[in-house]
Amino acid sequence: MEKLIDKVTGRESLMKLNTEQMYTLAQEMRECIIDSVAKNGGHLASSLGAVELTIALHRVLRLPSDKIVWDVGHQSYAHKILTGRRAELNSLRKMGGECGFCDPDASEYDSYTSGHTSTSLSLALGAACARDSLGEKYNVAAVIGDGALSGGLAMEALNNIGQEQKKMLIILNDNEMSISENVGAMSNYLTRARTSAGYVKSKRGIDSALEKIPKYGKGIADFVRNAKEHVKYLVSPGILFEELGVTYLGPIDGHDIRGMEELFRRAIKLEEPVLVHVVTKKGKGYAPAEKEPQKYHGVSPFDKEEGVSENAAETYSSVFGDEISAIARENSKVAVITPAMTLGSGLVGFSKEFPKRFYDVGIAEGHAVTFAAGLAGCSMVPVVSLYSTFAQRAYDSIIHDVALSNLHVVFAIDRAGLVPGDGKTHQGTFDISFFSSMPNVKILSPCSFDELRKMLRYAVNECDGPVVVRYPRGANQYVGNMGDFVLSKAALLKKGDAVTILAEGTGVPSAVKCGELLSESGIECDIINARTIQPVDIECVKKSVQKTGRLVCIEQAMRRGGMGENVIALLAQCSVNTEYISVSLDEYVTHGEYPEIEKRYSFDSESIAERIKKEWFDGEEKT
Amino acid sequence: MEKLIDKVTGRESLMKLNTEQMYTLAQEMRECIIDSVAKNGGHLASSLGAVELTIALHRVLRLPSDKIVWDVGHQSYAHKILTGRRAELNSLRKMGGECGFCDPDASEYDSYTSGHTSTSLSLALGAACARDSLGEKYNVAAVIGDGALSGGLAMEALNNIGQEQKKMLIILNDNEMSISENVGAMSNYLTRARTSAGYVKSKRGIDSALEKIPKYGKGIADFVRNAKEHVKYLVSPGILFEELGVTYLGPIDGHDIRGMEELFRRAIKLEEPVLVHVVTKKGKGYAPAEKEPQKYHGVSPFDKEEGVSENAAETYSSVFGDEISAIARENSKVAVITPAMTLGSGLVGFSKEFPKRFYDVGIAEGHAVTFAAGLAGCSMVPVVSLYSTFAQRAYDSIIHDVALSNLHVVFAIDRAGLVPGDGKTHQGTFDISFFSSMPNVKILSPCSFDELRKMLRYAVNECDGPVVVRYPRGANQYVGNMGDFVLSKAALLKKGDAVTILAEGTGVPSAVKCGELLSESGIECDIINARTIQPVDIECVKKSVQKTGRLVCIEQAMRRGGMGENVIALLAQCSVNTEYISVSLDEYVTHGEYPEIEKRYSFDSESIAERIKKEWFDGEEKT
Repeated sequence: MEKLIDKVTGRESLMKLNTEQMYTLAQEMRECIIDSVAKNGGHLASSLGAVELTIALHRVLRLPSDKIVWDVGHQSYAHKILTGRRAELNSLRKMGGECGFCDPDASEYDSYTSGHTSTSLSLALGAACARDSLGEKYNVAAVIGDGALSGGLAMEALNNIGQEQKKMLIILNDNEMSISENVGAMSNYLTRARTSAGYVKSKRGIDSALEKIPKYGKGIADFVRNAKEHVKYLVSPGILFEELGVTYLGPIDGHDIRGMEELFRRAIKLEEPVLVHVVTKKGKGYAPAEKEPQKYHGVSPFDKEEGVSENAAETYSSVFGDEISAIARENSKVAVITPAMTLGSGLVGFSKEFPKRFYDVGIAEGHAVTFAAGLAGCSMVPVVSLYSTFAQRAYDSIIHDVALSNLHVVFAIDRAGLVPGDGKTHQGTFDISFFSSMPNVKILSPCSFDELRKMLRYAVNECDGPVVVRYPRGANQYVGNMGDFVLSKAALLKKGDAVTILAEGTGVPSAVKCGELLSESGIECDIINARTIQPVDIECVKKSVQKTGRLVCIEQAMRRGGMGENVIALLAQCSVNTEYISVSLDEYVTHGEYPEIEKRYSFDSESIAERIKKEWFDGEEKT
Repeated sequence: MEKLIDKVTGRESLMKLNTEQMYTLAQEMRECIIDSVAKNGGHLASSLGAVELTIALHRVLRLPSDKIVWDVGHQSYAHKILTGRRAELNSLRKMGGECGFCDPDASEYDSYTSGHTSTSLSLALGAACARDSLGEKYNVAAVIGDGALSGGLAMEALNNIGQEQKKMLIILNDNEMSISENVGAMSNYLTRARTSAGYVKSKRGIDSALEKIPKYGKGIADFVRNAKEHVKYLVSPGILFEELGVTYLGPIDGHDIRGMEELFRRAIKLEEPVLVHVVTKKGKGYAPAEKEPQKYHGVSPFDKEEGVSENAAETYSSVFGDEISAIARENSKVAVITPAMTLGSGLVGFSKEFPKRFYDVGIAEGHAVTFAAGLAGCSMVPVVSLYSTFAQRAYDSIIHDVALSNLHVVFAIDRAGLVPGDGKTHQGTFDISFFSSMPNVKILSPCSFDELRKMLRYAVNECDGPVVVRYPRGANQYVGNMGDFVLSKAALLKKGDAVTILAEGTGVPSAVKCGELLSESGIECDIINARTIQPVDIECVKKSVQKTGRLVCIEQAMRRGGMGENVIALLAQCSVNTEYISVSLDEYVTHGEYPEIEKRYSFDSESIAERIKKEWFDGEEKT
């Protein structure tokens, strides 16, 4: 039998479905999402929770003239299916395939690039202001999760939305099951909002919910507004939003398509910002994900019958978690801070063993860092655990609150360098540049688990001032012993007189392999593991370059502001000249699997060796 | 007659004053503050508003063991007086003198570095958590303005404070008079809070305000809590804070010392986060500042009898404001966004002429940029006006929401380079580094008003994608014509064969003068105005350097990630080697007057010429 999902090719066919068919469609969409994610990995639980919500929205809005701004975008797979990208989901997160978030370059139905949290309200307000400024007519809806709503950017936008009073729809997608108890006061508030009033379930319930909304006609509107003003403290579970100038409707069951459709339809008739509080179940329709939504938030490929397996393999993240626990056992001043990334950062063990020294501050990277400064100023040794890409959100907190005061804060920067599946919004390729621009910040980069352990111990127990340890996703290691870690002392791994290869972190194993490949062509290299990116061991590099006259610098990071530029400028300042190749990035990085991505951006040892031969040895064998 | 301000040398003497004496002291402190600011410039209105509040706090808390975290710190002059720094205020903002914000390196009574807004709640929560973790006993108070409270960082902190429930005091210093109508929904909310309840003025009023606070003893506390839960919607003007888990007290008159003292004293007896809403008058006690608090927010030296004069002299800021207005007259898609910096950014005229295309989004730089992305995605041409130092707060919004999507957003970056009086927290020395790390961002740097006008027109009308125009504080210009602006085309201002000097922006007049000084010693220089920092005109530099073999790069910015590193690395990549001097920064910059600062960090033409002679010409005349 032909499936509904095959027949529904756009809004017109979607509108023809009856209620039963819509739930059948929802079920088929869920299967498609589960299959895609099981095959390719991706964000499962959020997208499963938002299927009915997406159907209701697509029935009410006319895309692409109307705009939906999906916060983060990891819940947009149902939206992708309804906008002609069902086949593309087969290649989700693969190079050339569908990206895991939203991308206007990929589809006119994706209004803005998404990936990081809490951006949707600002973007949607911008769209609404542009619409009114240009005299156009369309609807703008933002879909934002409860976690994202507590991010500072979203709160800033809400403050501005309440002021501007532009017509726009905010869907608060409240993943009831996924709120951990420490997401914060907003989460506690929403819990009360959900429980203090019954769901808006029936047509009658919706009418009742809408009664407090001003109707058209100035006189009536004023009357209703005044009445509302007097009673709202008693009737509205959304008092917090109402106080900020946003009309609140809800809560409504986020799996009741008809109910949501009706409420959305009425909401967009209002000429003001309206927030509809939709309560969804993360992971809905896939039992393992409903049971453990956090585990099924973002996943690697898995067997959908078996579910996601417990991955016991060591990664840099797990090594960090284990080692910081070991350090905390010996040092009672150590505290760990995470912005809602306990699981991904390898911190489940620490959080259980040291609950009083573990702070999950919610999705709030800026606060995480400034809060750490607060701890450090009162004799604690805070370790802020951040994904490289999210550390970008704390840039000013790092400069202004930590670095300027030279406070001893340890930044454990996970997912540094290339981040394959998540794509361009999640690359860890800026951290070397931005940390390097801060004069007193030390940057360490381990090339193995062992080195990560040593660097962490140095950073926590021996270092003064701000110090960064950047390490990659996964487990790519250099196998070899380099002895104790000493700040600003590089390690010479192999000797040669033709080329100096300076590498950091995950570039070290590539450099070693590249050296072997070149050696086969008779080109012998000094291979240097930088270990400390800043202050870099310039004496070691200088000595080598004075011998070879050729420097290659490998760093999984942007070229501008990176280690290579620093080294080449320092050499020039002491009149040491050299030929130079930079293996780094001059563009944004797309999604794909790691080997594909490594190859595409020429970080693999073969590409590096080829480039060296081509540029300096006429592409020919030296011998 | 000896003044009270001479007698009050610490908390002990402060405690001995009767009420009348306290007001006399307040008056004397105001005179001291007005004299200091009239002489040295500084932040007047905020500090005048907080005098009584400061006295009350210093009577209740025992510094330095108790901690006050002043948000921004520009309201802390009274605190400086009460902590032994009255004499230092004579040299406020001068090199070696008292800084205009808070600095723990300068005084043990300053708990944390301040300067940027909205950091105090995160810092205070950190201090409270550290205290409890280490088993210590002291009070922590944050003093935060109403504008700062709407910043994302403060909202993130509030979300976390409501969750953590640590004992701490938050003083909301609500500058009644200074709120402009467009600061946002939080401001509207606070206005209602102020007016919906009478002030807590009397002892009886305070008792009444305290009635809803849980008293000690679990049973009573529970009883009171439950009762509170039921009636709070009807009784509390602080419903928004209460909903977020923070006990609200107030509003109270911020010039009633005894009332505040009593309320603070009771508040710190509670074992939970308490927010006291204090209503102050910005500029209190100095008539011109009371009348125009915004004008007296931050001022240059002035005659205290005459008041601040209208400064009609052109600056880069005023030229920007005038030119963007002229451009907007011709291009109806141009919109301007400011995060609460209308006056300082030269935008008063624009805001009046184009109210519908002018967005003051409140103190919210991240939102300002992401909101601009929202506008740009719907066919507007947004110009985001940001001080360089505050642009740091939007780093991720710039990458994630603008640059990744290659949206046409113009960043008008004011106060780029050295910023004299405000000191280390306000330097515009990071923008070249951080904008440069983003592959598709163009960076333009004018060396004159004329060039600023041309670059703005190019950026708005001809450019695609994100583009930055960075310009300095003040009016330091190169006088000379350079013809039309063409992207990535530098201007050779003077020819010579001994040295190449590449400069950007305000470094250009210094470079020209330096060239003249060197010429007197027979050293002739190529002087190049970079004009475009990124993508830099490498061909022009290469051609010059191949002739001279010596490159000097002048940029008022951090060395790491700057234009110089880019140029030297690009030259090395095409095998052009050169001697190299970088005139840039490797440290944080202190406060002082511009010529002092310029000299101290060796950006003045004499220092540069000396350095060139010393390093390359043995300090001797060439002829």
